[in-house]
Amino acid sequence: MHRARRLRAQRLIPALGVDAVLVTSGVNVRYLTGLVSSNAAVLIPRDGPSVLCTDSRYAGTAERECPDVEIVIQRDTEAALTERALDSGLRAIAFEDREMTVQRHRALAGLDGEEVVGHGGAALELVPLDGAIDDLRIVKDEVELALLARACEITGEAFSAVMDRLRPGMTEREFAVALERVMVDLGADGPAFASIVASGPNGAIPHHVPSDRPFERGDLVTIDCGAKFGGYHADMTRTVAIGQPEAWQREIYDLVALAQEAGVAVAVVGADVADVDAVARDVIEGAGYGGNFTHGLGHGVGLEIHEAPWLGQDKTGTLADRVPITIEPGIYLAGAGGVRIEDTLVVHAGTGAAGSAQSLTTITRELLVL
Amino acid sequence: MHRARRLRAQRLIPALGVDAVLVTSGVNVRYLTGLVSSNAAVLIPRDGPSVLCTDSRYAGTAERECPDVEIVIQRDTEAALTERALDSGLRAIAFEDREMTVQRHRALAGLDGEEVVGHGGAALELVPLDGAIDDLRIVKDEVELALLARACEITGEAFSAVMDRLRPGMTEREFAVALERVMVDLGADGPAFASIVASGPNGAIPHHVPSDRPFERGDLVTIDCGAKFGGYHADMTRTVAIGQPEAWQREIYDLVALAQEAGVAVAVVGADVADVDAVARDVIEGAGYGGNFTHGLGHGVGLEIHEAPWLGQDKTGTLADRVPITIEPGIYLAGAGGVRIEDTLVVHAGTGAAGSAQSLTTITRELLVL
Repeated sequence: MHRARRLRAQRLIPALGVDAVLVTSGVNVRYLTGLVSSNAAVLIPRDGPSVLCTDSRYAGTAERECPDVEIVIQRDTEAALTERALDSGLRAIAFEDREMTVQRHRALAGLDGEEVVGHGGAALELVPLDGAIDDLRIVKDEVELALLARACEITGEAFSAVMDRLRPGMTEREFAVALERVMVDLGADGPAFASIVASGPNGAIPHHVPSDRPFERGDLVTIDCGAKFGGYHADMTRTVAIGQPEAWQREIYDLVALAQEAGVAVAVVGADVADVDAVARDVIEGAGYGGNFTHGLGHGVGLEIHEAPWLGQDKTGTLADRVPITIEPGIYLAGAGGVRIEDTLVVHAGTGAAGSAQSLTTITRELLVL
Repeated sequence: MHRARRLRAQRLIPALGVDAVLVTSGVNVRYLTGLVSSNAAVLIPRDGPSVLCTDSRYAGTAERECPDVEIVIQRDTEAALTERALDSGLRAIAFEDREMTVQRHRALAGLDGEEVVGHGGAALELVPLDGAIDDLRIVKDEVELALLARACEITGEAFSAVMDRLRPGMTEREFAVALERVMVDLGADGPAFASIVASGPNGAIPHHVPSDRPFERGDLVTIDCGAKFGGYHADMTRTVAIGQPEAWQREIYDLVALAQEAGVAVAVVGADVADVDAVARDVIEGAGYGGNFTHGLGHGVGLEIHEAPWLGQDKTGTLADRVPITIEPGIYLAGAGGVRIEDTLVVHAGTGAAGSAQSLTTITRELLVL
């Protein structure tokens, strides 16, 4: 599996016009080799096998988990692999400029000193890769989709378990802590991100940090959460009502639910990402709440909680088969509250009634009233 | 408090030979303004007040938490602040090359286009700062030391609570999960880092990830853990014995304890960081285990779990008053097990019997036998 992924990366090399690719971002190293490490890099040459470099802390893990790749143990992984490339006559090296700091880049470029001239004279050339390796991760394989589906199942089970305990007086923070603990009890690596629990007026803040505010009767409570499983990130948002909702609460809830459903319906293979955003946004704008939906419609999920593709007004590109995304419209009314509804879905060719995306989220989109 | 810190940063500017400093690392923005944000930057000009820029998600928090600084709300914080500097005639800007990626740096340098020439013609000059702002954080103020002390207290209380539950059959992972939960119950922001629980032969791996291995009678178990409180990171390691230790276990335990005690004794104001490492290392080397102590002696702690100063054979510098550090020697015997003992201490001028460091760690260094 990892070898096949490295071959896909290798096939990018001719078009990049380089001799090798140096992969330094942690998720991309994990994707290409299986190694989870805070200090590792992979060199993928134009021809021949890749080399994984990590430090002595991860030597045992690398040997056990990555039997199909050559492993070099050295602390300065980037220098070790770049020197190795130069020794092999590889001089034009694409690097991850999205991830590499200016300081590390300068150190690498500095390898191009006298020592290097001794290897044959030609200069080291570092070529920015932009997101070329990240983009390899957009379309998921079956193993990835299974891990993501399990992450979403755990998220739903944990949400249901803690919803049963939600009472007025429980605080946002208590709810968040309980939710994340149940995820771990159900086998999650941990939460996919810091849970958002935003009650009453806090619901107007899209990225509210759970506070000591106790839930009150009459609140809408927005819970944005997800489990991480095998490295894959689930992402789900539900807004629930404590007690029968008032008319304004019901109105914005129904509107967001409709917008979310409309977005899901058009998230099919070949759909333009800006169009999917527009279909959902039009529902909200048409009802006069356009100014209260202040973020993009969604994003890809996988080894990162936020990754390509991006669904938004100013985004470009189309959806492909086997691409997991979120669809998460919201309405935020400052001082009053808010609603957001989010599913994790997989865009599939030819599944569903009209070829629409398959939802991995297991919780109903209907308003839960406690 | 934050204003005073920004003044200290401002005082660096003349020696740097620049017009302003652009701070982009999250911990440094927090240190200088109090704002906790995943997207924020601070511009500190040569003269006059600083400007904090963050995006709309953090607007309310920034206004509430940072009343003493001008706030600009814009998504691309680095571009906004750089353009503002150029508008004010500030053209030589120091940036955090340790943190900024090559891609973001290129975007900033690209601001130096036609638009800029219109502002007066002189070119934008981006000058690397290296760790100049990080280094401002080495010496802690009283507020920081109080937060760190509380983080260490919580760590000790959680450790004791979970030690009471340690039994053969409990797994490494169960212990780690329980420990981190108690930290949160005691008021921690969360764990300061992923806890290491390494039992039996796993103890030979300094950065072992907790596994499903159940504890067994005869194990040494190394627990490296810490609570985060108010943003400050505690760091403590204890190795405990399940059942009476064998002779080899007792031997390496006593040796590491002695090395740790020796390191603590010489961690005084003015001590050379390589000398402190050497004093502890000599104890272990003298007993023939030098090759089994494979890492540096310790590091600073604060808003980051690992920060300057660094205590190691190849490190330079001396310890100053009010600098928190860890002292953490270890012996690792492949296939058999290991011992590490680590305290968090504060180097203080003139406290303690011989001016030695004050321990913030609350758990005894004596071998705990269960």
